[in-house]
Amino acid sequence: MQESVQLAEDETVREQVFQAIEEQDFQALKDITAAMHAAELSDLLESLPPKERSVLWEHTPDQLDADVLSEVQEEVRDVLISEMDRNELVSAASEMDVEDLAEVIVDLPTDLRTAIEESLDNAVRAKLETSLSFEEDTAGRLMSHELVSVRGDISLDVVLRYLRRKKDLPKYGDGLFVVDRDGNYMGKLPVEALLGNDPDTLVRDVMEKDDIQIQASTSAHEVAQLFERFALASLAVVEDGKLLGRITYETAFEIFREEADHAVLSSAGLDDDEDLFSPVLRSTYKRNIWLGINLMTAFLASWVIGLFEGALDQIVALAVLMPIVASMGGIAGSQTLTLTIRGLALNQISASNIEWLKRKELSIGIINGVLWAVVVATLAWNWFDDPGIGMVIAAAVVINLIVAAMAGIVIPLTLQRMGIDPALSGAVILTTVTDVVGFMSFLGLATLFLLP
Amino acid sequence: MQESVQLAEDETVREQVFQAIEEQDFQALKDITAAMHAAELSDLLESLPPKERSVLWEHTPDQLDADVLSEVQEEVRDVLISEMDRNELVSAASEMDVEDLAEVIVDLPTDLRTAIEESLDNAVRAKLETSLSFEEDTAGRLMSHELVSVRGDISLDVVLRYLRRKKDLPKYGDGLFVVDRDGNYMGKLPVEALLGNDPDTLVRDVMEKDDIQIQASTSAHEVAQLFERFALASLAVVEDGKLLGRITYETAFEIFREEADHAVLSSAGLDDDEDLFSPVLRSTYKRNIWLGINLMTAFLASWVIGLFEGALDQIVALAVLMPIVASMGGIAGSQTLTLTIRGLALNQISASNIEWLKRKELSIGIINGVLWAVVVATLAWNWFDDPGIGMVIAAAVVINLIVAAMAGIVIPLTLQRMGIDPALSGAVILTTVTDVVGFMSFLGLATLFLLP
Repeated sequence: MQESVQLAEDETVREQVFQAIEEQDFQALKDITAAMHAAELSDLLESLPPKERSVLWEHTPDQLDADVLSEVQEEVRDVLISEMDRNELVSAASEMDVEDLAEVIVDLPTDLRTAIEESLDNAVRAKLETSLSFEEDTAGRLMSHELVSVRGDISLDVVLRYLRRKKDLPKYGDGLFVVDRDGNYMGKLPVEALLGNDPDTLVRDVMEKDDIQIQASTSAHEVAQLFERFALASLAVVEDGKLLGRITYETAFEIFREEADHAVLSSAGLDDDEDLFSPVLRSTYKRNIWLGINLMTAFLASWVIGLFEGALDQIVALAVLMPIVASMGGIAGSQTLTLTIRGLALNQISASNIEWLKRKELSIGIINGVLWAVVVATLAWNWFDDPGIGMVIAAAVVINLIVAAMAGIVIPLTLQRMGIDPALSGAVILTTVTDVVGFMSFLGLATLFLLP
Repeated sequence: MQESVQLAEDETVREQVFQAIEEQDFQALKDITAAMHAAELSDLLESLPPKERSVLWEHTPDQLDADVLSEVQEEVRDVLISEMDRNELVSAASEMDVEDLAEVIVDLPTDLRTAIEESLDNAVRAKLETSLSFEEDTAGRLMSHELVSVRGDISLDVVLRYLRRKKDLPKYGDGLFVVDRDGNYMGKLPVEALLGNDPDTLVRDVMEKDDIQIQASTSAHEVAQLFERFALASLAVVEDGKLLGRITYETAFEIFREEADHAVLSSAGLDDDEDLFSPVLRSTYKRNIWLGINLMTAFLASWVIGLFEGALDQIVALAVLMPIVASMGGIAGSQTLTLTIRGLALNQISASNIEWLKRKELSIGIINGVLWAVVVATLAWNWFDDPGIGMVIAAAVVINLIVAAMAGIVIPLTLQRMGIDPALSGAVILTTVTDVVGFMSFLGLATLFLLP
């Protein structure tokens, strides 16, 4: 039996792989991979630098190829595929589930894609075409075609005998899907209902009629929200009333992981599929887009500072203190921004409560602004022995914290309305606003009141 | 049947609630809540401002209380509980699942806790005590006590007859747990195996013997990783070999949500259970801790700037340009930091690959540093018509981007080794480093090379 220490063993296995590669002990590599579950091997491959990853993949038994390619993150999969020859890839593809194959095949060159499609059974190819007819990140693309459906007008006993005759039942049988004679979806027969009732009972009398179902065009985000909200194990995907496929909690796990990664990585301008161990040059290119955007906003802030060269020239304390005003605004604004982006993702914000939220954040901005204005002013006054500096920085902190609170709500709402992902660009725009307003209010007020 | 548009309906329902409250139409509120699933109602309550939340809760049918309290996020739950009277709360508690009750009861005042414990059946109280004997965020605390276990030496037919006799089977029956006569865990009997085999077969011949099991002390984080890696629907929790309970994919969903929230919210110094609609003063207090910490780091940066008052006094361009150096370092560093924190959370980083990662990030730092140094220097030189300024800012950008890359790896690793959560404090420490190094390198080099 597997022990619960197995995640701690990840490191041990990784050490063994490094050692085997260094010693060129390829038999050891084969032994290590052959003893692993495809999911473990995928995680291991994701945590190896390019050279080690390539050597380990070369010595992975072919029968694991299909499962590993289905499991690993996209960017790593592209690397693994690039190291396989055509025959290996076609053979692995033939063993994949349709939904996994659909994910892989769209990124392949046309000739390879054709070769794979030609190698498939007619039935499998038809399912693949159905999957591909729906857009990426929709229920139709994500759904599995492996499910057991039964008619509503038969007895549980007939269902039980049917299942016993049927070889290789699909896993995750939390329930069977019930359809009418035309294939229209009628409800789900939970396993508890199948097992807990008299065998003479008709399916339609014990099935869940108000079971949740989704259209094939439903977005992955909404699918995940439904799984979470209703604690679903599986979900029927329908189109025009007909049962097309099902999505299981397993796919919900994947969507959760992708959304969590997206929320964290995109705020730093990183790709969702960022590979920690990708080669230097590939990483450099991607990150530079973000650094370039940031440089433009930094120069914008500098240009604002440059407008007040006169003031800076006469009072050097302004240059010393100005980052404080900008920084406090940036922190306060990013708190509001983070909460707003999360509220939007969870569907918590709409016209009815937005005004309350704005008033709340404005109140927090005023209270915190005044509070920190007093603290900052006291420190600044003492440092430079100049009450005027204290008054000016106090006013600038209040202004910037109020603007930050409003920007933290308005920016993500506006971006969302424009169809731009607020998690990606919200933070850059916000800090640009708080930098510009921070510098302008502090240096502007100083110019008005402190210059002789 | 429920339609897939139901998430879009959230907003409509919210509008209706606001309208009913404004019109004091309490019957409408009762109708709205009575028609809802507890999970939907919980999400609705989470998205209402304090006044509306309170009125709606007051008019929620009592029979939904237990489920809603089990579903809502912690901070909202505290608010709802504070508005219930003692009898309501005791009655709701008696209907909760043990694992939900364990979560609620630990936050209650002692007298209320005693009243609830006294109202429970002996059997339920014993289970509650078992749950509470394990620490928060461990498998023992999270596990459900509702499961079906069978002996390995009986036939599938006996199991089927047993299930048929048993009333209210627990849901999510992806499988039954198999134990020996002493209650020792032996493996899982998947539903497919129960349904797909001859009724005369013995349980032990078709059960999954190498099924994954975990100790009661296993952390929630590890539990979630196991669910994700192995696409589990349920997991046996054991202690000293004995089956104690089970964790289902539903709990894994909750852990994923909490971890995703934590990753996003903690980077802005916000609580995981931050309630978007909490009253102003409560929010103000929490956020100010973070603003206070940030103020100290901002003053540290200002103090560094203050060391170079002489240079700033003579060359005003330094004040204008210095935020650019700090900002570029902050962005580059936060990219590395974000990837490292995620790699640590996913168990991808250990002694064997850390050196490779450091070299990679160092290389990226050098390449990006030189690249952006050229860009920034060209712009600065042209702006101030001074090649010296260009040279100095180029050197400072290179230095700061290299330091940022190293800090992005070393800071989270060190925090993790010290037992401090890098997601919470990593970003503050990093930007402090990049600010200080950015200002010091730029102003220091200027002092050395540009002052007459």
